[in-house]
Amino acid sequence: MVEELLSYAAEIAVKVNSIIDEVVRGDEKHLYNASLHLLKAGGKRLRPLLTVLSARLFGLDEGLALYPATSVELLHNFTLIHDDIMDRDDFRRGVPTVHKVYGEAMAILAGDLLFSKSYEAMLRLVGMVPNDLIIKAVRELTWAAVTVAEGQSLDMEFERRDDVKIGEYLTMVFKKTAALFKACAYIGGVVAGASDEDLAKLCEFAKNIGIAFQIRDDELGLVGDEKVLGKPVFSDIREGKKTLLIIYALNNVDSHRRELILRNLGNAQACEADLRQVAKIVIDSGALEFSDRVAEDYSQRGLKALDEIETQDLKAKKLLKDFASFLTKRLY
Amino acid sequence: MVEELLSYAAEIAVKVNSIIDEVVRGDEKHLYNASLHLLKAGGKRLRPLLTVLSARLFGLDEGLALYPATSVELLHNFTLIHDDIMDRDDFRRGVPTVHKVYGEAMAILAGDLLFSKSYEAMLRLVGMVPNDLIIKAVRELTWAAVTVAEGQSLDMEFERRDDVKIGEYLTMVFKKTAALFKACAYIGGVVAGASDEDLAKLCEFAKNIGIAFQIRDDELGLVGDEKVLGKPVFSDIREGKKTLLIIYALNNVDSHRRELILRNLGNAQACEADLRQVAKIVIDSGALEFSDRVAEDYSQRGLKALDEIETQDLKAKKLLKDFASFLTKRLY
Repeated sequence: MVEELLSYAAEIAVKVNSIIDEVVRGDEKHLYNASLHLLKAGGKRLRPLLTVLSARLFGLDEGLALYPATSVELLHNFTLIHDDIMDRDDFRRGVPTVHKVYGEAMAILAGDLLFSKSYEAMLRLVGMVPNDLIIKAVRELTWAAVTVAEGQSLDMEFERRDDVKIGEYLTMVFKKTAALFKACAYIGGVVAGASDEDLAKLCEFAKNIGIAFQIRDDELGLVGDEKVLGKPVFSDIREGKKTLLIIYALNNVDSHRRELILRNLGNAQACEADLRQVAKIVIDSGALEFSDRVAEDYSQRGLKALDEIETQDLKAKKLLKDFASFLTKRLY
Repeated sequence: MVEELLSYAAEIAVKVNSIIDEVVRGDEKHLYNASLHLLKAGGKRLRPLLTVLSARLFGLDEGLALYPATSVELLHNFTLIHDDIMDRDDFRRGVPTVHKVYGEAMAILAGDLLFSKSYEAMLRLVGMVPNDLIIKAVRELTWAAVTVAEGQSLDMEFERRDDVKIGEYLTMVFKKTAALFKACAYIGGVVAGASDEDLAKLCEFAKNIGIAFQIRDDELGLVGDEKVLGKPVFSDIREGKKTLLIIYALNNVDSHRRELILRNLGNAQACEADLRQVAKIVIDSGALEFSDRVAEDYSQRGLKALDEIETQDLKAKKLLKDFASFLTKRLY
């Protein structure tokens, strides 16, 4: 049941938050406060949960899994702080973004600090898990950091292009979002001593639900309200994001409507009525139904890969399945 | 002789540059070009040289030492790219800074990418050096990244303060500059299998010459010309940097001159004549002579620690000594 998952998620979040307090601590008060601002604003700690459950699947003690779990959460928050500067977003998790509160210079530095602290948290495993496994985990973390940066670069490039293909969007989403989910699963599994074969299945699971998650998140950006989003509605349209919905609509509406979308997409001057009109055109095009099918397809592929993994910890496997459903469910 | 050192430095630079080309490579052309912009603009590759020579001291093959050497250079360039955004510097190494050419968003991302690539370069050692030594190197790299961020935070805080003490300046310089020199020496030594005792001496050496280097660099900022600096003269004064020279002058001139310094320090509106006048007051205060003595003292302390290290590779030790002299010599 989802209640059981959410209650376990809350339990893990408390433990991860306590390690964050331990790792992100230093004399330079202003820098450390800026670094903790977004972390203290909430967040569901989904990536730590995926990491811990992946580790449990292969018999690792939850207590040990909390260090890599904290590591991926720190990496994630570093990317959010920097993305918000790049995308000029003023709100996240319902509070002003780090650069809005502390200025851009300090926000850049706060992100950099969390990036370093992400490695520091991972290295807390030294002496508790064999060194060769820690090195594999550090290598995966590094791969994820490189890949997420590449994904953000594509996302920004796509804002300036009107001809983004669905395949390009999926590559971008894999890099920007799903790569870190894959890394969470890999890191959890590898420090637990999972075989290469099991790791491959686990990565296939996480990669696919990661893509489905981002597609659902984009849907919410079109139809969600400000309270759920934690930021103004239609920011994606205002920023010119080429989501699956926008790409579908651009390819499936008449030239008049296409023109109307393009005129307002990425236009900082567009008023709320314009943005609302664009959203309506996109919805009327059938983009949500299309997007639903694609998300559902990725979600099923992920669950199939999970099914093939054998484990002693049936509870963890059940929770991972619920996690996938929760993560990839329709949000509107 | 310095010729021998410079010729070896050039040899190492070529090899490091070739590994950089190998590691910093990917499909996202715009991102990778931005990431390579500063690296291609030159730079003396001083930190790789220190890393390689430290490794040679304890018998590691130069070819293996090139990976950690590249790693520290990538970390260094990441910090420069981000510092230039924070400090609003338009030029470095005689060319426009990354954010001036590619925009701030792409410059933030380029720095992030180089940070990740710094770990990637280090991890190229896997299979060639024992895993426990690689983990120690990764841990030191992480410590350096955290410490450099803390140092940059202090540097920015000091710009807003008029009462910075010499001790605070030295802490800031240790964190912002010397910590990475120390990390270069430690990493080179540790992957070569140096004992803890030798590592401590090596770190003492590198830390002290790192501090002396920064003091000399600050001197050059006061008296150097634009061609040598690679950026406009007096940027330190314009940005309100609390260098040892400024701190000394503020404490040793009469209240009229002190007022004149403070009026122009960190004042973006100050004209060249104002800045020139501030520089003259600082020089006339005897700040350079004071700064010379402090730099010389750190330099001697460093050389003394190096002297105590025993090695089979006397050539490497001689080059390290020359490196220290070259790095910490008076530049005006």
